[in-house]
Amino acid sequence: MSAEQPTAAERPAATVLGLGAMGTALAAALLDQGYRVTVWNRTAAKAAPLVERGAHAAATPEEAVAASPLVVACVLDYDALYAVLDPGAAGLAGKTLVNLTSGSPEQAEEAVAWAEGHGLDYLDGAIMTTPEGVGSAERMVLFSGARAVFDAHRPALAAFGDPLYLGADPGLASLHDAGLLGLMWATMAGWLHGAALVGSEKIPAESFTPIAIRWMATVTEIMTGYASQVDAGRYPGDDATVDVQIAAIDHLLHAAAARGVDNSLPELLKATMRRAAAAGHGPDSLASLVEVMRKPQPPA
Amino acid sequence: MSAEQPTAAERPAATVLGLGAMGTALAAALLDQGYRVTVWNRTAAKAAPLVERGAHAAATPEEAVAASPLVVACVLDYDALYAVLDPGAAGLAGKTLVNLTSGSPEQAEEAVAWAEGHGLDYLDGAIMTTPEGVGSAERMVLFSGARAVFDAHRPALAAFGDPLYLGADPGLASLHDAGLLGLMWATMAGWLHGAALVGSEKIPAESFTPIAIRWMATVTEIMTGYASQVDAGRYPGDDATVDVQIAAIDHLLHAAAARGVDNSLPELLKATMRRAAAAGHGPDSLASLVEVMRKPQPPA
Repeated sequence: MSAEQPTAAERPAATVLGLGAMGTALAAALLDQGYRVTVWNRTAAKAAPLVERGAHAAATPEEAVAASPLVVACVLDYDALYAVLDPGAAGLAGKTLVNLTSGSPEQAEEAVAWAEGHGLDYLDGAIMTTPEGVGSAERMVLFSGARAVFDAHRPALAAFGDPLYLGADPGLASLHDAGLLGLMWATMAGWLHGAALVGSEKIPAESFTPIAIRWMATVTEIMTGYASQVDAGRYPGDDATVDVQIAAIDHLLHAAAARGVDNSLPELLKATMRRAAAAGHGPDSLASLVEVMRKPQPPA
Repeated sequence: MSAEQPTAAERPAATVLGLGAMGTALAAALLDQGYRVTVWNRTAAKAAPLVERGAHAAATPEEAVAASPLVVACVLDYDALYAVLDPGAAGLAGKTLVNLTSGSPEQAEEAVAWAEGHGLDYLDGAIMTTPEGVGSAERMVLFSGARAVFDAHRPALAAFGDPLYLGADPGLASLHDAGLLGLMWATMAGWLHGAALVGSEKIPAESFTPIAIRWMATVTEIMTGYASQVDAGRYPGDDATVDVQIAAIDHLLHAAAARGVDNSLPELLKATMRRAAAAGHGPDSLASLVEVMRKPQPPA
């Protein structure tokens, strides 16, 4: 036990491949946690701010991979990932690759097969924040793949945010990422439509938004209650029915149309509600919309 | 000053017209706050539980209006409101009507003109919660119309939730209500699409939803930052650009299509992003989508 700083050899090492805004934030977060960080980027100049902070800039991906047992990749896409790693594939055996490159669940599954072929441990991940949010324990970083790999590298993963392990299927992080981004885009579009609507009456978005955010607390409470309805496949409409929502959405369509605000989004939402009602969910809760979104299960 | 219970004559009085689930909750909230409550409903039997709790059931709307200086209306729609009040219009002068009936901003403005014709003070409102949430100080109740009427009756309005005054334009409560409900429907649809997506891989909605709700904290933080962009009409894409989101949404479309999940909602969101990019907002933040949603302002 010593109060002295650990020597360089005692500090854990990690390599970051890809220094876009997110890769740079990941490397900086590892430096903040005392890691010996090696970085590589196709355009070498991007490494300069990290080198100033103590990172080592490798000249090639091979050199970067050789420097650390843990390699974190955050490059443009999966094609770029293979282009970076395949030339030095012989040096991958025994290393761990944590892949935070954006992609589909299918691409994550292909990457696992590729990694196994090279004797490389593999974990797939998705960072649920902007580069500015990296390092905050309030932000989620999602992981899927071998549990043992997650457990072994958890301290490094915790440098990026709050690491959540989703399961052994390597596609689960990308699948959740896609679902959560879809939720973000839908929410942002709904909020911007509301901002356009009240903005037509000279209400600033900075006045509407705090009210909208307070309202989201009510909405997420309703979501919590509806989650068990989705899992049970039964949607009692005790609080408000699809039929009531269809009547209410006409007030929005009318108010927006009267102000020249584009109604594509609420029209799609109404059409989805009407499909649910046509399928017999008129007296059910809004959670029943999940039934018209998902593929009908084939008979067992 | 006395520690004794106020006599019936000292307790403030309020009337509630319309005893659907919401009207019943409003009357109960007033009873909870010690009001002398008079109620009326087209179907008289609905008053019974409130009468058991001490409310007086009036035989006619005229009798109900006569019983209190403050009249709260929560009926099916504006046609029902006029049908209930017009026969006894002579008794309306000097009263205050707080109208919580759902409707459009235009209907609220017509109601003000109608109220003025009868010497009736008028306040328009919208309750941003389910009947179960009425009475919680965490839930918003939105009001618009004459400020003096809001101030005079604030204690009664606070029985329903946290009363927010939005401005003198009587349509503002309904306008905000429409915008907030639009935000709710969009958010719920995005969440249900995500639940359908991860559900296709046997992830329960009860596992996905807590992650989705944590994610909403990040999303609302982004909304707060973007609100000033909307007001300024400039949308710097420092964190993520529309072009980046268009690339990312393809992962969602691909993952959902591969699992047979309906893609109407993400396809509309992508089309909206592409309209923004076509209008020159590709390098801007997602907040720029408001530009393709709102009516171009005519030249001054």
